[in-house]
Amino acid sequence: MKTQIAICGYGTVGQGVRRVLTENRKEIEERCGFSPEIAYILDLRDFRGDPFEDRLVRDFTEIENDPDVAVVVETMGGLHPAFEFTARALRAGKSVVTSNKAVVAEYGRELLSIAEESGVLYLFEASCGGGIPIIRPLRTSLCTERIDSISGILNGTTNYILTRMAEEMVPYEQALAEAQAKGYAEKDPTADVEGYDACRKIAILGSIAFGTYIDYRTVPTEGITKITVEDIWDAVRKGEKYRLIAEAKQTPEGISVSVAPRRVSESSPFYSVNGVFNAILVHGNMVGDVFFAGQGAGMDATGSAVSSDVLEALAYANRNEIRSEKKC
Amino acid sequence: MKTQIAICGYGTVGQGVRRVLTENRKEIEERCGFSPEIAYILDLRDFRGDPFEDRLVRDFTEIENDPDVAVVVETMGGLHPAFEFTARALRAGKSVVTSNKAVVAEYGRELLSIAEESGVLYLFEASCGGGIPIIRPLRTSLCTERIDSISGILNGTTNYILTRMAEEMVPYEQALAEAQAKGYAEKDPTADVEGYDACRKIAILGSIAFGTYIDYRTVPTEGITKITVEDIWDAVRKGEKYRLIAEAKQTPEGISVSVAPRRVSESSPFYSVNGVFNAILVHGNMVGDVFFAGQGAGMDATGSAVSSDVLEALAYANRNEIRSEKKC
Repeated sequence: MKTQIAICGYGTVGQGVRRVLTENRKEIEERCGFSPEIAYILDLRDFRGDPFEDRLVRDFTEIENDPDVAVVVETMGGLHPAFEFTARALRAGKSVVTSNKAVVAEYGRELLSIAEESGVLYLFEASCGGGIPIIRPLRTSLCTERIDSISGILNGTTNYILTRMAEEMVPYEQALAEAQAKGYAEKDPTADVEGYDACRKIAILGSIAFGTYIDYRTVPTEGITKITVEDIWDAVRKGEKYRLIAEAKQTPEGISVSVAPRRVSESSPFYSVNGVFNAILVHGNMVGDVFFAGQGAGMDATGSAVSSDVLEALAYANRNEIRSEKKC
Repeated sequence: MKTQIAICGYGTVGQGVRRVLTENRKEIEERCGFSPEIAYILDLRDFRGDPFEDRLVRDFTEIENDPDVAVVVETMGGLHPAFEFTARALRAGKSVVTSNKAVVAEYGRELLSIAEESGVLYLFEASCGGGIPIIRPLRTSLCTERIDSISGILNGTTNYILTRMAEEMVPYEQALAEAQAKGYAEKDPTADVEGYDACRKIAILGSIAFGTYIDYRTVPTEGITKITVEDIWDAVRKGEKYRLIAEAKQTPEGISVSVAPRRVSESSPFYSVNGVFNAILVHGNMVGDVFFAGQGAGMDATGSAVSSDVLEALAYANRNEIRSEKKC
């Protein structure tokens, strides 16, 4: 039975994966009958005193060439060399699991095709909505639905800023500075506040929901930087809130995708999604509205989503051995 | 490749399954590479003019003895003969998929064990929360979590009554009569209003979340019949709402399970769940809060959940054939 995995990129998410797999080892073994073993951690940095210091390697070839490694976790961030390592791992017959929305949005179609050719999986539950189960439910629980629309608050940074602007009636710049001070926004917040992050995520979710490739470059995207205190005040007076809504929907003219700030009233499920939380609303022709919410980012929540993919990929790698057990 | 299924019980849910599988046949084939074929419908009633009239049979033995039937859908309701037919189907090497919470709560452990011995699946996504994906996410997406608690609004009838009582300040009896007139409550509403329905559902969900058998008979259960207009008025004045909350949680003394009306404030995710909607909140030690909401009942929503299980069971039956495709 193959249980060895390699974590490539030992930053926040990579360490989150390690934490989930070690802290919850007992629960995982009870539920699944086996538990992943971290054989390698790829990172160029030193991690003195880290409990997994002895697994650190700097050369991806070591992982690529080890036939015992069944699953590679790509939590490096950025496009390169994340894409190249993913493709090499897949071609080497290893499933790859990632939280890297940039790579999925840019190269997902190509990587899924390489995975299929190689008889392995390319899984990316953590790339959209952090810890919220959404990609697997779309693939499985909602597989008999004709999806009419999928929409969501897919970026916690902007939702935090919009929440604080309305709570304190402070301008955008001040709420952003606060988000940066709390670690919710990066020094260069462009990808979040201009909607680019949400744009990639809705392109990924829409591609899965509608079974067709959505190129994120074609998605009209507007961020939250132009929203003024006056706008917020006007919304509050009318019992509304600003939310950055990413949406993909079927229209008579085809699939329409957009990212833009929208005013939602109390009747919207997005109205009560505050702070850094994310939420996703799916409408299927039979099931109607299904709503998912949870933490869209963070070491442990994202690590949890990556870990669930690791278990699926390992179960797939060992499908002959564990077939009779039907676990995980 | 085996694609034949039998639907046992052609009432609301059974017809919903037929509707989902026929209406969305194209989408299912595109996503999964195959589509279920309804070979038999077991019911003692006549269905003149029904498009599947020619598949109607009255003798379960016909289904049991047909080796081409890979999956049996049990949507009969009630304990008997639903339990016996389920056990016979599993022993005959057919996976069984059900929406029947009574059978799952009473005989689930036994039937899961028979399924395991027979190398088939017993799936019951639709038994809790109707169309909301919750059992599969617990088994898969949250499989690396240590679940601390799972709680929910698991009964749409009582939620509708509580919603209407607060909206119109009418007494329980009047809101119940309205729910009955709209078809949301049965003539004998006992199972819903006394909490027995929610009790069975939380016993099922808790058993899966905590990996241990919870006997529904041991769950302290209180319904909504004693809530007065004065209670509701007092809650409204304090910005609160009554909701019938079913909960299973880890405590230092073990797993504590209960069903009771509770007052929730605006900060609770259950506050904005109105009418017949259901919602479930899971707290995991790593992922934090994850919230699911949707239609807890109804022909199409429940039919959708059953259908997703049918696809999983068929994929399992054909795992050798479809292994390389990784679909569904």
